Formats: sequence, structure tokens, C-alpha cells
Amino acid sequence: MQERGPRPGFNRQRFTVAYCGTPWRGWQSLPEGQTVQDEMEKAILKATKVQTRVQGSGRTDAGVHALGQVAHADIPTALKMSREAWMNGLNACLPTTIRIVDQEEAPEGFHARFSSVGKIYRYRIYRPRVLSPFEADRAWHIYGPLDMGALEACASMLVGTHNFVRLSANRGDMPEEVRRTKIERTTRTINRVEIREVGDVLEIEVEGNGFLYRMVRMIVGSLLQVARGRASISWFSELLASHLGPQSHQTAPAGGLYLVKALY
Amino acid sequence: MQERGPRPGFNRQRFTVAYCGTPWRGWQSLPEGQTVQDEMEKAILKATKVQTRVQGSGRTDAGVHALGQVAHADIPTALKMSREAWMNGLNACLPTTIRIVDQEEAPEGFHARFSSVGKIYRYRIYRPRVLSPFEADRAWHIYGPLDMGALEACASMLVGTHNFVRLSANRGDMPEEVRRTKIERTTRTINRVEIREVGDVLEIEVEGNGFLYRMVRMIVGSLLQVARGRASISWFSELLASHLGPQSHQTAPAGGLYLVKALY
Repeated sequence: MQERGPRPGFNRQRFTVAYCGTPWRGWQSLPEGQTVQDEMEKAILKATKVQTRVQGSGRTDAGVHALGQVAHADIPTALKMSREAWMNGLNACLPTTIRIVDQEEAPEGFHARFSSVGKIYRYRIYRPRVLSPFEADRAWHIYGPLDMGALEACASMLVGTHNFVRLSANRGDMPEEVRRTKIERTTRTINRVEIREVGDVLEIEVEGNGFLYRMVRMIVGSLLQVARGRASISWFSELLASHLGPQSHQTAPAGGLYLVKALY
Repeated sequence: MQERGPRPGFNRQRFTVAYCGTPWRGWQSLPEGQTVQDEMEKAILKATKVQTRVQGSGRTDAGVHALGQVAHADIPTALKMSREAWMNGLNACLPTTIRIVDQEEAPEGFHARFSSVGKIYRYRIYRPRVLSPFEADRAWHIYGPLDMGALEACASMLVGTHNFVRLSANRGDMPEEVRRTKIERTTRTINRVEIREVGDVLEIEVEGNGFLYRMVRMIVGSLLQVARGRASISWFSELLASHLGPQSHQTAPAGGLYLVKALY
């Protein structure tokens, strides 16, 4: 496990990273590579000759995008580089679908994952009859009427502190007696859910203090079940009200999801 | 070569096709596949069991996009399908980066290539310092000042009828004495060049009665040489004024180019 703070002789650099998730197998390093973390580590090695681990604020699944993922890496103090040099140097070594959009020296005690106090995610739904080929893998294509009243009603239920175990892929295999004792591990607070129409795209933005595995995609998948008239508002409210029933099993596709910001 | 009109017992169907060129080796069928034409022929076969050739208004290079490519295919008259059935049927069989955006029965004598009287192309240049990862392979990333006056001056020179041989990759290997006798083959008329700023993107739109191989990319590459102060306005005007000098050799990347419309 990564040190909480940098070892002596190292400074922690904080990076803001945007990426199009389509060509990548997610954020987290894999033995077979093709992940954003692997690409960042390779770029740092190429640009600075420093072999280091990159720690993100959290994982994103294969195909999920980011506008403002945050990551840190510990770099020998001897290596002095300006913000401009970091950004130009890494961007020159990274594939064009991954871009460093900001860099700064991390404040004392900063850890990309452990210091994060929340995240903002956005989900994009493309509504015209024919999908734009430029929205392929960048939005969920749903054609047809949506019950916006029901969508808003369910969305407003999400705000607050709930056990989200039925709206996540965490512990789906966990027996109920175990689930009963682990409530706090699957309890999260959502501060804001915003639904807006931006041209042909319906955006659902969710801000919370943390998210379980696949939680945003299962929230959106479940909300859309209701909005499309395939499930009732009470089915949705039950998912939040009791943590002991079956999980939702409605997961929106990865390509519509964007990590907008990691909050500190 | 494809028949000019459909054989007896066949009707000609006209399709408008949009595609993101990034995953494709261009429009034109290749033995190794991975082209938009190949994918359309496969989709027609899958959706209708009809093996047919698809004829486009013209080729697009690997990585070039289209908003309104036009193509036709001859289909047995016995096969009756509504516009909705064509669009849904083909779109269900096509990869999501290729979309049929319109279909109609072609008018008498229509041929996607030979009936075309012109085309509109758009070229996108992304100007902020850091490329958006969502614009990778969808725009040319140029950061830094551009001499917009010089760009406009050169762009206005393009309008009219010129020999564009030095602004194309056609016949680059052709000796000058041959070129002298083939002028009419490399002469084209440009009706409109429009330069506009759309948010962070500079768009150059060109409408003409026909385009030589790589002509739009070489026009844009050459315009930008001048706009970036790397070549003079007189160098550009010379490319149009005399067809006997060397070719421009400035080619903008494929990913910024969009076939907006084929004109009939």
C-alpha cells in the first residue's frame, strides 16, 4: 500500500487529469496494461525518468470518462519542474485521449484518495431518435418518452444519507445476515442530484461524499427504469428504504458516465 | 464498375450516412475490411439478406468523419421497406460509430457519385492550450496566436475556379509536361470559404463543385502555415496562380475533417 505521505526526499505532486475512457480498461493499473494509471506512470517515467506509482482519487470502470480525476505521485525533491513543464512534459508523453489539465505541489498531508471528501459525477443520456456517431460510447442512447415527473421524484429521494447497497454492485454476493452488520460500510450521503436538458442530452449530475462500486450507474439505470415506465416510483423508493431486499440490477452503460470532479 | 442505373427488378435506395472516422480505414472498401463501405454492405446483408454494393458520393480518407455522406445501393424491387424500417434495420446492424440518418428511394437516374454536383467540407481546429481528450482525433490541436487577417486573405483567394494541383496529392508524381496537358482534370471551383469561431474551435468550411485527393486537408494545412507565420501570403497565392511549381506539402491531419454534405 502507498505511503500516506511522501518519503523523505520526495515531494508529492497533485495532477488533475481528463480522459476519454473509450480506449481504456479503466483507471486502475492492470497486469495487461491499457489503463489510465498505467499510461500516467509510463508518461512520468518517460518525461522525468522517475519510476513512481500514481494514486488516483478512486477508480473508474472501463469506458468511464473523467473531466477532473485527481491523482498524486511522489517525485524526488531534487527534480524541479514548473507547472508548465509538468503539463507540457506529461502531455507530450501521454496518448491524446488522456490530458493533464492541471498540476500543483500537493499541500502537506494531501493524499488523492484518503483526502477526498466527495465526488461529482455526471451521466449523459442522448435522446434523439438516431444516435449521433460522435456520441457513441459517450452517452447512453435512449429514444422515446420519459416521465420527467417520476424521474425528478425519484432523484429527489436520493438526496440525504442512505444505505446504497441495493443501488451498487458492492457485496452483491454477501448473505443478508452479514449485510445487516455492515450497514455503515455501504451508507453514503448524496448532497445534490441535478437533472438538466442540455440540447439533445439529458444530464444527471450527482454529488456525494463517496460512491460504492457501480453506484452511479445503478442509480441512473434504476432512475431510467422508472422514467421509461418499466418500474414504479415505489420500487425505487424501496431500494433506498430497506437495505435487505434484492439489488436493483439496472446498470446504465459505462460510456455515459463522467467523473466531473474529486472534492477535497 | 457499377451500373449507372439499377438493373431491371431493382430499385435504387439513397442513404445519408454520418460516421465518426476514428475507428475506420476510410470510406472505400478494402480487402482487409474496416471501412465504412464494408460495414454498410455487411449491415444491408444482415438486415435484408441482400448482397449488394454500396456506392458513395466519394471517398473519405482513414480518420475523416462525415455528417452527411450520401450513398446508394440497388435493392430487389420485391423488398418493400419503409424509411423507418430501413433506418432502424440498418442502424441495428451497424456499429454505433456509423449511423444512417436518412433514407429515401432514389429519383430516376440518381447516382451517388455521378449525380453529385459538389460537396461541403468542414475542418475543425481546437485552440486552447491543452487539448480536450474528447477532441482527440476530432480536431487539429493548434495552440498559439494565429494571424486571422492573413488567414482570411488567403481563404478569400480560394473562391473561384483554379487549378488546385499544387493544393492536392493528385498526380504529385506527374511530370510537368504531362501536368500542362491535364489542367482541366485538376481544375475545380470553390464557391464559398467560411471561417468562424465556435467556442474553442476554429472552423473552416469549404464548398465546391468537387475536390481533388487530399485537397481540403492541403488547403487547411497551407492556410495554417500562413496563419502561424511560417509562410507568406504570396507563397499561398502562388500555389493557386501557377500550377507548375512544387506542391504545398502541408497537409492537415485527417481527424479534423468532416464531410458535411454531398450536394445534388
